[in-house]
Amino acid sequence: MKRKIRMGMVGGGRGAFIGAVHRMAAAIDGEIELVCGAFSSNPKKSKLSGADLYLPKDRVYGSYEEMIKKEAELPLGERMDFISIVTPNHMHFGPAKMALENGFHVVCDKPLTFNMKEAKALQRLVEKTGLIFALTHNYTGYPMVKQAKSMIAKNKIGKIRKVVVEYPQGWLSTFVEGTDSKQAAWRTDPKRSGIAGAMGDIGTHAENLAEYVTGLKIKKMCADLSILVDGRKLDDDGNVLLEFDNGAKGILSASQIAAGEENNLRIRIYGEKAGLDWRQMEPNTLIVRWLDKSTEIMRTGVGNLSAEAQAHTRLPGGHPEGYLEAFANIYRNFAKCVQARLENKKPNKVYTDFPTVADGVRGMQFIQKVVASSKSKSKWTKM
Amino acid sequence: MKRKIRMGMVGGGRGAFIGAVHRMAAAIDGEIELVCGAFSSNPKKSKLSGADLYLPKDRVYGSYEEMIKKEAELPLGERMDFISIVTPNHMHFGPAKMALENGFHVVCDKPLTFNMKEAKALQRLVEKTGLIFALTHNYTGYPMVKQAKSMIAKNKIGKIRKVVVEYPQGWLSTFVEGTDSKQAAWRTDPKRSGIAGAMGDIGTHAENLAEYVTGLKIKKMCADLSILVDGRKLDDDGNVLLEFDNGAKGILSASQIAAGEENNLRIRIYGEKAGLDWRQMEPNTLIVRWLDKSTEIMRTGVGNLSAEAQAHTRLPGGHPEGYLEAFANIYRNFAKCVQARLENKKPNKVYTDFPTVADGVRGMQFIQKVVASSKSKSKWTKM
Amino acid sequence: MKRKIRMGMVGGGRGAFIGAVHRMAAAIDGEIELVCGAFSSNPKKSKLSGADLYLPKDRVYGSYEEMIKKEAELPLGERMDFISIVTPNHMHFGPAKMALENGFHVVCDKPLTFNMKEAKALQRLVEKTGLIFALTHNYTGYPMVKQAKSMIAKNKIGKIRKVVVEYPQGWLSTFVEGTDSKQAAWRTDPKRSGIAGAMGDIGTHAENLAEYVTGLKIKKMCADLSILVDGRKLDDDGNVLLEFDNGAKGILSASQIAAGEENNLRIRIYGEKAGLDWRQMEPNTLIVRWLDKSTEIMRTGVGNLSAEAQAHTRLPGGHPEGYLEAFANIYRNFAKCVQARLENKKPNKVYTDFPTVADGVRGMQFIQKVVASSKSKSKWTKM
Amino acid sequence: MKRKIRMGMVGGGRGAFIGAVHRMAAAIDGEIELVCGAFSSNPKKSKLSGADLYLPKDRVYGSYEEMIKKEAELPLGERMDFISIVTPNHMHFGPAKMALENGFHVVCDKPLTFNMKEAKALQRLVEKTGLIFALTHNYTGYPMVKQAKSMIAKNKIGKIRKVVVEYPQGWLSTFVEGTDSKQAAWRTDPKRSGIAGAMGDIGTHAENLAEYVTGLKIKKMCADLSILVDGRKLDDDGNVLLEFDNGAKGILSASQIAAGEENNLRIRIYGEKAGLDWRQMEPNTLIVRWLDKSTEIMRTGVGNLSAEAQAHTRLPGGHPEGYLEAFANIYRNFAKCVQARLENKKPNKVYTDFPTVADGVRGMQFIQKVVASSKSKSKWTKM
Repeated sequence: MKRKIRMGMVGGGRGAFIGAVHRMAAAIDGEIELVCGAFSSNPKKSKLSGADLYLPKDRVYGSYEEMIKKEAELPLGERMDFISIVTPNHMHFGPAKMALENGFHVVCDKPLTFNMKEAKALQRLVEKTGLIFALTHNYTGYPMVKQAKSMIAKNKIGKIRKVVVEYPQGWLSTFVEGTDSKQAAWRTDPKRSGIAGAMGDIGTHAENLAEYVTGLKIKKMCADLSILVDGRKLDDDGNVLLEFDNGAKGILSASQIAAGEENNLRIRIYGEKAGLDWRQMEPNTLIVRWLDKSTEIMRTGVGNLSAEAQAHTRLPGGHPEGYLEAFANIYRNFAKCVQARLENKKPNKVYTDFPTVADGVRGMQFIQKVVASSKSKSKWTKM
Repeated sequence: MKRKIRMGMVGGGRGAFIGAVHRMAAAIDGEIELVCGAFSSNPKKSKLSGADLYLPKDRVYGSYEEMIKKEAELPLGERMDFISIVTPNHMHFGPAKMALENGFHVVCDKPLTFNMKEAKALQRLVEKTGLIFALTHNYTGYPMVKQAKSMIAKNKIGKIRKVVVEYPQGWLSTFVEGTDSKQAAWRTDPKRSGIAGAMGDIGTHAENLAEYVTGLKIKKMCADLSILVDGRKLDDDGNVLLEFDNGAKGILSASQIAAGEENNLRIRIYGEKAGLDWRQMEPNTLIVRWLDKSTEIMRTGVGNLSAEAQAHTRLPGGHPEGYLEAFANIYRNFAKCVQARLENKKPNKVYTDFPTVADGVRGMQFIQKVVASSKSKSKWTKM
Repeated sequence: MKRKIRMGMVGGGRGAFIGAVHRMAAAIDGEIELVCGAFSSNPKKSKLSGADLYLPKDRVYGSYEEMIKKEAELPLGERMDFISIVTPNHMHFGPAKMALENGFHVVCDKPLTFNMKEAKALQRLVEKTGLIFALTHNYTGYPMVKQAKSMIAKNKIGKIRKVVVEYPQGWLSTFVEGTDSKQAAWRTDPKRSGIAGAMGDIGTHAENLAEYVTGLKIKKMCADLSILVDGRKLDDDGNVLLEFDNGAKGILSASQIAAGEENNLRIRIYGEKAGLDWRQMEPNTLIVRWLDKSTEIMRTGVGNLSAEAQAHTRLPGGHPEGYLEAFANIYRNFAKCVQARLENKKPNKVYTDFPTVADGVRGMQFIQKVVASSKSKSKWTKM
Repeated sequence: MKRKIRMGMVGGGRGAFIGAVHRMAAAIDGEIELVCGAFSSNPKKSKLSGADLYLPKDRVYGSYEEMIKKEAELPLGERMDFISIVTPNHMHFGPAKMALENGFHVVCDKPLTFNMKEAKALQRLVEKTGLIFALTHNYTGYPMVKQAKSMIAKNKIGKIRKVVVEYPQGWLSTFVEGTDSKQAAWRTDPKRSGIAGAMGDIGTHAENLAEYVTGLKIKKMCADLSILVDGRKLDDDGNVLLEFDNGAKGILSASQIAAGEENNLRIRIYGEKAGLDWRQMEPNTLIVRWLDKSTEIMRTGVGNLSAEAQAHTRLPGGHPEGYLEAFANIYRNFAKCVQARLENKKPNKVYTDFPTVADGVRGMQFIQKVVASSKSKSKWTKM
């Protein structure tokens, strides 16, 4: 019999941002229930967080190791089916590895790991275990991103010539890591974040979005990463020239010192016949600019959109779907795949559309190459 | 001990739109769990819907009467705490009345009832039982609507002079009720919808929004309701001149034949010092147009917003919150109030901010008066 | 031989706003030259203004009477061909009448005259003399207004059901007429402006735009005009329910106390198949919202627009044309018609598209009726 | 005595685009009159064009040489005061040089010349003759560009950290030069356009705008120019990483194959305290995004703008000014300077704000360096 899929969470205790996002995203569609968690490396804090979430005390753990061990001892259907990892980057690999080794599926926040070595090890483990692994590159979950992808796949805009993907934020315009901001602290700390700052945190979203939507691969790049706030240890701004494997040119830009910008991820793709334009802050709109006719405004839930767009839409047109709904699309699809696995069925193809460990490895490679390119005196670095 | 609040649903089976909305809205914040339902007046359909939602068979009922009766027999903490009514208008009163009489709190979709008589009876019952009653005028749940309300309450824009509230939709531009659209069928049927069409369905949202945000009351009105699609039985377009109790003038417009419009609820409020402008389809933006300085763009999650706005925001700026999150704010607040009741505490004041049975009665009065005004040859009808 | 058409101006001296607009609009296309003027009823001020404009002293007059008399004595080709009247409303009739009686064509600012009696007298005089008369309802000069008109005429959006035309400004939100604002002083003075304030000044633009674009006539109306700023003598806000001669419903709203609004004329027209949306402050965009497909964004100079739109466009797409260019379209067309008259030819049909004395009479009727309706206790007043 | 300044035009005959733009821009403010022209290298065509413009036959010339020679023989006040050069790039130097040598001031379209050698020769000649030379980088003529420049100069946004300037157009998305498009033909022809295509035609506008607004100079660059349409001879897309002389980073992008884009020049400048955002297609809006408060929307003609912005504005807020008005600001300022020269006065400082031969040399240097950088294998090329 079908049932809700059972989630255990690693990280995301009081004061965390992304943990709450994952919980809301997982809850929206009624396919997943939170059954346990190790919400903090501080056991007391973990307990308090678990109580906030109405979890029974015996399912709130002091560490992920404890959680995975204890849960693995519970019977199937009572124990968690998967873990959701919402810790800083340097704390992804440990719980992911142990979960996989103990037979649990995994949802992991991005970027995949702290470094490339961990990323590849994780990829091998996923392949070996055959377990289901989702990476929350949430921006690809928006219906109009699916619409753009399917239009390109169907050659509606012709051969792609140019891609401009930009991700400006302004919240690191001052030396925030000198205040008590947890979010800023770990993101600007090479020991927790890895070799890249803005490029790892949001540049990878831009890279993932560009490759997902276009179906192209970045072939080479020329990067210029900067630290523009005094005292900072990792890049807070980066601009990258791109060449894609079909010969298309592009620009990728990510900044956390773009003063006054909120979270303004945007992608423009120019083909031979039309240009597409999508902006995360107005996500239910996809602009299609045709060569010799009026611009078309496609809207979530309106008219004859692609099957993929429709399958990731919950509401009629004009009822705005937002960040959480896009995020929820990853969880919904993941849950449906786990459910199919429980029933020994093949999942509906539409549900297999979520970022995987391979996307995570690709992102880690992007980080590595973009940092190398920035240090290089040569113009181009191969991806 | 605190626990999740337990919901039973009336209506909202397969193929329904608003039932799913209520379930998602109730689920997002993790304060509510769906424990039972009477999803259809057809018991078989109700069972299938219950299975879709992973409910145990014995908590899926063939009628709301059965549900209320059986649930009332279960111990507190196991039985549902409240019912959520998501049926067409003519089916609100019955379950609401029976639930209240059996000690259950109620969430009810709008408009409150089929007619004024039922509305007043319900209001008396709520007052008598002291139970908690929420009406889902969901649009007031948006953070930037709260922001506008609090700015006006603090006299930031001066005495209000003019209010323009408009709600254009286009989905009834053709004779959709002649097709198999369930949504269109009952909304255009006087036996299920009541004496008003567009004015009842969406005009009441506009009225509620205008009075909620401004803190003013409509004093008199001059309405012109029309049926613009041949064969239709209820108004599909209406335009109303308003006068408010402080002397401000206004326009309220609701249309379901505004071809090409999605769900374009918008309110503009002009005071002596500034004008406010909020549009549901871009809900995270509140435009403040000042008399002699630059226009200000307030955004959900950005800068120094009012406590009320912040208390109804889940995400940082630039992470768009949408229709479901606004809807969820009603459920979250309602759940917090029920929880406080269970603990014999007074709820935090911020959580008491949701539409109640009194708003519902006000909406029914609006419907009655707007229909009367439209039939009148005199210019003004008192509210 | 073809030559530039020669203009004499009445009003528009130093400190005036609309006089400069007329001069710039007349100059843009190189079809008209300013040859003389009576720029002020104060002869000294008139001389100074003439010098500012590089006019020879003997062509700068102390009064319109003097100008018309003296110019009429000059030979054709040297004397002015037409006068442009840019004085306050109560000063339109005199110069227009005398010009017509002396064989000069006329361009006149709107509204046509101070009252209906003058309007009709002027209309008779135009008919009698056969001279060319243009009224500067400049907003109909925009290319995308032409585009909307031609789409409706070709039945692209089906039978019109609803028209919403609104014209909010905020500049009279305070008692500006108590300061030294010349603009505010005469516009709020019944002795110079006539029986209406905002409705005469900008409501007539809204009325003219609605009838021009739709090709429909207002049949009846229900108006509510208000004075919302203490001490003011004429309406500063007005809201009007409309019924058109084809049965379509509508709203017309004009306000000069809509705090923070600049000059936000907008019209939305909903037909059976689509809705059109045009806004003066972004005039190069016409939004077409179709019933069951993506919204279309038509843009000045882009794609396959109507002949009428193209004939009133000077630049390629993306080179914004503004207020002056739309205004200039009236002057250009008028000049081409005068030129054709000089050559005893019929003008190209496209050039006959400008507002005439008949539009002016219609506007005066609108003013009269809207004021009467506002005073009436009956709902509807016939136009 | 003051008089209108007299213009002779080189180029801009029938079928040309930019010639008509220059004539309209010169006419708007009534400070300039067209008195003669050599509109085409084909004398017959020149005559026809002159007749279209109502010029006397004896002032329409068959070549610029003839025009300059003949006009120089006329008395001052009758002869032209300056020439306006609106020919393709390779035809700028000849007439500019001859005009300067014969004592005429010059307005010249951009880019300045065909190559750097000509540019420097012209600069020397301007310096030697002391004549007035304006280059029509028209986009800096917009009031809100002036506003942005003055805010930066007054340190309102703090030290600049990042500049993103982009100029996408789509009109060369197909092999238009294979059709009968005059515009496309010369712009894609190295013999008439010079060593750069899109970078020369519109990239120079972007470079000029960035340096003008920020007051910074580009120090080094890394360019990637491409030909993305088969058979084309000059770059139609280019992306450039920038470093400015204060250490700020940036991106400059120019494309003529950005399918569906009209003329979408946009600049974003991020300082320590705020970000500025201006877009040519909605030119009357300047967005100021502050670090920790609401975004501000500055608008032409509204509120307390800088003296520079106000001095280049003709209309009240909400009356959109467009491309021609911005262009006219260059002509107006130039004319006022010529006028001051005729009167042996120093011009008002505000009128000296127009691009000069030095900006033209800078633009030529940009072209040279951007082409060199694109060919280089090293990352950075010094400007």
